[in-house]
Amino acid sequence: MSRWEPNARGRLVEAALTLYSERGFEQTTAADIARQAGLTERTYFRHFKDKREVLFWGAAQLEELFVTAVTGAPDSATPIEAIAVGLDAAAHLFEDRREASRQRQAVIVANAELRERELIKLANLAAAVAGALRDRGVPDTAASLAAEIAIAVFKIGFERWLDDHRQREFRFFTRESLAQLKTVTAGK
Amino acid sequence: MSRWEPNARGRLVEAALTLYSERGFEQTTAADIARQAGLTERTYFRHFKDKREVLFWGAAQLEELFVTAVTGAPDSATPIEAIAVGLDAAAHLFEDRREASRQRQAVIVANAELRERELIKLANLAAAVAGALRDRGVPDTAASLAAEIAIAVFKIGFERWLDDHRQREFRFFTRESLAQLKTVTAGK
Repeated sequence: MSRWEPNARGRLVEAALTLYSERGFEQTTAADIARQAGLTERTYFRHFKDKREVLFWGAAQLEELFVTAVTGAPDSATPIEAIAVGLDAAAHLFEDRREASRQRQAVIVANAELRERELIKLANLAAAVAGALRDRGVPDTAASLAAEIAIAVFKIGFERWLDDHRQREFRFFTRESLAQLKTVTAGK
Repeated sequence: MSRWEPNARGRLVEAALTLYSERGFEQTTAADIARQAGLTERTYFRHFKDKREVLFWGAAQLEELFVTAVTGAPDSATPIEAIAVGLDAAAHLFEDRREASRQRQAVIVANAELRERELIKLANLAAAVAGALRDRGVPDTAASLAAEIAIAVFKIGFERWLDDHRQREFRFFTRESLAQLKTVTAGK
């Protein structure tokens, strides 16, 4: 029987971000994280399979939210309108996590292995969004293209949101980037 | 003094693609590749620093061509028009390499480590193209967005070109995807 640890997951994530920021990802062990959180190493491994997963456990939730929103967009929505619904849902997930997201981003950027993992996460997200668009009847190439654009808007919006010091919402930036698409794609 | 080996690089690339396709990437050594090419292992390492580089040595050339073309686009070109010039230049690089590109793609897709390396290559290409657009005076976010779109069009066009059995040129597909952008981004 495992002892009930109130909010163990959240405490482990917070402890990991603190230690990864202070000492670096390489120099931190799962045992260090557990100790920092006042929990055992065993509890750590009940929640996360390795040192990386504490940084990437949210990927599945992000993907599910995004895909569900795209799937649930009105039948009349164009690909980019369905994407906009997905982006709003994804942005909502992060709204109260800016400081933790900033810490996480700094850890990722500082480590080549984590940067690769982040690229894979986004490539998987693009594939899932493309699948959701195809299920809406969007032709194959258009679905892939729209999904890649969705991820680009998400990524660029995310970085701008983290850099922002005026407390604007994440979705302000994804919406602004989406609006910019028109300008960017003009002329051809 | 090193002995002159006619077209050693090309022979090594061809031998690597043959062995990686037949036996798999993991099961092939640099010595195997050199033997298959009728060259020494020492010659292999004069050309490529490891087993992966024989698959990725073209990345620098691709990036240089793409960036040079974007930089050299007419001053009046919009971001997407400059991207179109870059895509044509990149496509030209591949026109006579479809069979080798197909072999290479199958090797990459079959190996997680190589898929990661390919994602990093494309992320670096996106960053370089964004830099070239900023140098043209395109604002930061628009430059990043246009560059991500460029890479998406390149990637999707590349896959469609490899799948095509009607001998259409690579640039047919990048141009078609670029044209589709208008449809895909409609409505918002």
